[in-house]
Amino acid sequence: MILLRSLRDTNKKVTLLNLFQTVVQTNKLHLNSVLPNKDDFVNINLQGNSLKYPSVWLRDNCQCEQCFHQSAKSRILNLCKFNVNVSIKSVVQDETSVQVTWDDDHVSRYALNWLKFRSFMPEDQLKYTKTLYRPVKTPWHGKDFHKVCAKHDYERILYSEAALYKWLQDLSTYGVALIQNTPNCDTALDGIVEKIGFTKRTHYGVKFIVENVANTSNVAYLSSNLQMHVDLPYYEYCPGVNMLHCLVQTLSEGGENLLSDGHHTASYMKNNYPDQYKLLTDIEVEWSDVGVEHGNEFFKLYRSSVICLDRHGYVKRINFSVPQRGSHFPGPIETVKPWYEAHSLFYELNQKFAAQFKTEAGDILVFDNIRLLHGRSAYEDKSDNVRKLIGAYVDWDEIYSRLRCLKAKLNPLEGI
Amino acid sequence: MILLRSLRDTNKKVTLLNLFQTVVQTNKLHLNSVLPNKDDFVNINLQGNSLKYPSVWLRDNCQCEQCFHQSAKSRILNLCKFNVNVSIKSVVQDETSVQVTWDDDHVSRYALNWLKFRSFMPEDQLKYTKTLYRPVKTPWHGKDFHKVCAKHDYERILYSEAALYKWLQDLSTYGVALIQNTPNCDTALDGIVEKIGFTKRTHYGVKFIVENVANTSNVAYLSSNLQMHVDLPYYEYCPGVNMLHCLVQTLSEGGENLLSDGHHTASYMKNNYPDQYKLLTDIEVEWSDVGVEHGNEFFKLYRSSVICLDRHGYVKRINFSVPQRGSHFPGPIETVKPWYEAHSLFYELNQKFAAQFKTEAGDILVFDNIRLLHGRSAYEDKSDNVRKLIGAYVDWDEIYSRLRCLKAKLNPLEGI
Repeated sequence: MILLRSLRDTNKKVTLLNLFQTVVQTNKLHLNSVLPNKDDFVNINLQGNSLKYPSVWLRDNCQCEQCFHQSAKSRILNLCKFNVNVSIKSVVQDETSVQVTWDDDHVSRYALNWLKFRSFMPEDQLKYTKTLYRPVKTPWHGKDFHKVCAKHDYERILYSEAALYKWLQDLSTYGVALIQNTPNCDTALDGIVEKIGFTKRTHYGVKFIVENVANTSNVAYLSSNLQMHVDLPYYEYCPGVNMLHCLVQTLSEGGENLLSDGHHTASYMKNNYPDQYKLLTDIEVEWSDVGVEHGNEFFKLYRSSVICLDRHGYVKRINFSVPQRGSHFPGPIETVKPWYEAHSLFYELNQKFAAQFKTEAGDILVFDNIRLLHGRSAYEDKSDNVRKLIGAYVDWDEIYSRLRCLKAKLNPLEGI
Repeated sequence: MILLRSLRDTNKKVTLLNLFQTVVQTNKLHLNSVLPNKDDFVNINLQGNSLKYPSVWLRDNCQCEQCFHQSAKSRILNLCKFNVNVSIKSVVQDETSVQVTWDDDHVSRYALNWLKFRSFMPEDQLKYTKTLYRPVKTPWHGKDFHKVCAKHDYERILYSEAALYKWLQDLSTYGVALIQNTPNCDTALDGIVEKIGFTKRTHYGVKFIVENVANTSNVAYLSSNLQMHVDLPYYEYCPGVNMLHCLVQTLSEGGENLLSDGHHTASYMKNNYPDQYKLLTDIEVEWSDVGVEHGNEFFKLYRSSVICLDRHGYVKRINFSVPQRGSHFPGPIETVKPWYEAHSLFYELNQKFAAQFKTEAGDILVFDNIRLLHGRSAYEDKSDNVRKLIGAYVDWDEIYSRLRCLKAKLNPLEGI
């Protein structure tokens, strides 16, 4: 079966909107015509649905050995010789594949499953985004914390791919997941990290210990109240996920964990305090950390807003830290006071929305460090009342990668 | 001497523009008035210049031991008790400092140098940005490559802080710098990396070897022509700087390095092909790498435009790689062909603007991986004609940090 439609885009300087209209109109005109040459689009019949593919994209994604390296799974065609205005001699579709013969007699063959998986229909693109690219995040209020913070078992994560997948899926969705029954040794965290890949090293090391330290270079190493914050906002490549293994928990009243979903707070502000929301997304402040650790000096500065949006307007990162906001304010002086008002409001709301709980020895609290704010109430630091955590960071690049590998293995996707 | 001016911002819902106008107008009205209470701004006389500081910012940056932790060099004031509408009882300035007494009788003292360094005057903010935050980047055309690519000596970088500083400053400015006279051993690169901090680990390892490998998982490990690209664009945290230590260079004609400054090309396109420039900044494509390395599976995907702009409209990252652009196109179908046209143009221009040269054994070619495109011409891979590079990545977070530490040491900045 041959199904072809064509669009002749004669005006090279059309805007995207015009182009879109041209596409729509031209398709109407040629809806049932079959024009084998100079086509910009090819229509393929997939299980009764007619799906449209751009010719240039098809040519670029030819899967033959000349164009695609099989073991590297990578495109190897030479871009210098690539013809954006490629045209088609013929399209032949059988039960399982489509064969396109190009104007230079090069032949490309595409499996129908492969094409279906790469559909340009917006609903198919959205499905792919949610199932493979990145799971959708679900914001939460602290009162629902016990519902969203699923409990996972250390040994099961190590030995079951399904358990590992479930844990990472929860972490991606809610930004928090608790691992229980962790062996009481300093290296237990490594086993979990290795199931994903490796840690993100920072100037505080490959891993870090959180306990009371005199004359510290970081306020996290004090026993006093630790206001809610994200770790290391002064890194452009801010650690994605924070894993805190509780080895010893204080027996006194204090030392409780606080967690707030910055995405929930941002969404609440957007709806109820749009002016302050705009200030926190627009105004960049300077995050800072200057000191010496393990004998190495560091002088980190990074400018960013408190709420960072991606180009689609979704929150991609939250920055917040009272101690690690620098004393330089890089913006216009007239924005300073309104910014401080919005900043205080953001913190107040996070406190209102926060969950409070206390991890136990054997717990690894895992949370999205560029989404959640975390803190800790003060505790009494005495020789018989200590608290010790071992922490490590892992970046989202590695976590999403492991999630996709597991997804492809546990729930094979046709045409991947 | 007491110098005070006030601004009463009675309308809390003003927009930023209105606010700015209010500031300007109110300042005109109160230009010579001295109102000691409820001030939003404090004016300080610094060497004959009157510099204005927001009261709320001054209170937030109180340097006393209650508000600022001296060894952690961090703000420790309690945000819950922080009053954004703080007002002032008195301001007393002497030869070296300013003392502010707040309405709750808290007293803050600021060194004049400290204040001057944190001036809110736009020209002072710009100077601070250029001297301490990040050096300005200078785009270049390949014909000027021999002028911009400074040659640095391996031993001098190891033993002279001034040489280390010069090298990193060149790298930040031009995105490329060559290190010569490197010892011929596999670990020589480590010495250079340790002068900065540590490498960025990826799924290819802490370091990587570039030589011809059969059945590779990456096309860089082939001897064929390697089209210009950036490394690992499928990482959201794409490696900042690429260091390639040439241990053995091929004796045949091929194996030449190609380097092009993506910032120069972007700027050229912005001026000469604004429509195509806009497409490359607006349309996100999917970068991809799927495979197995050292026994570990990876499945990396990241969506981003070819030219990524920051919120000020400056280029912050370039993504380009024929083999590592995925086969999924996440955007609207009608943008596909215009995008391919712009993409081909971008590559054509980079080829036109590229520098061509050949590193020698003992060279470490260091370049900004999120700015420059790099490539290599084909070479004949035979037993007597091999080529071997050892590579490592280091992120800009660590490089800028080291640059600032060195800057503060070599050219102390007053008030830092």
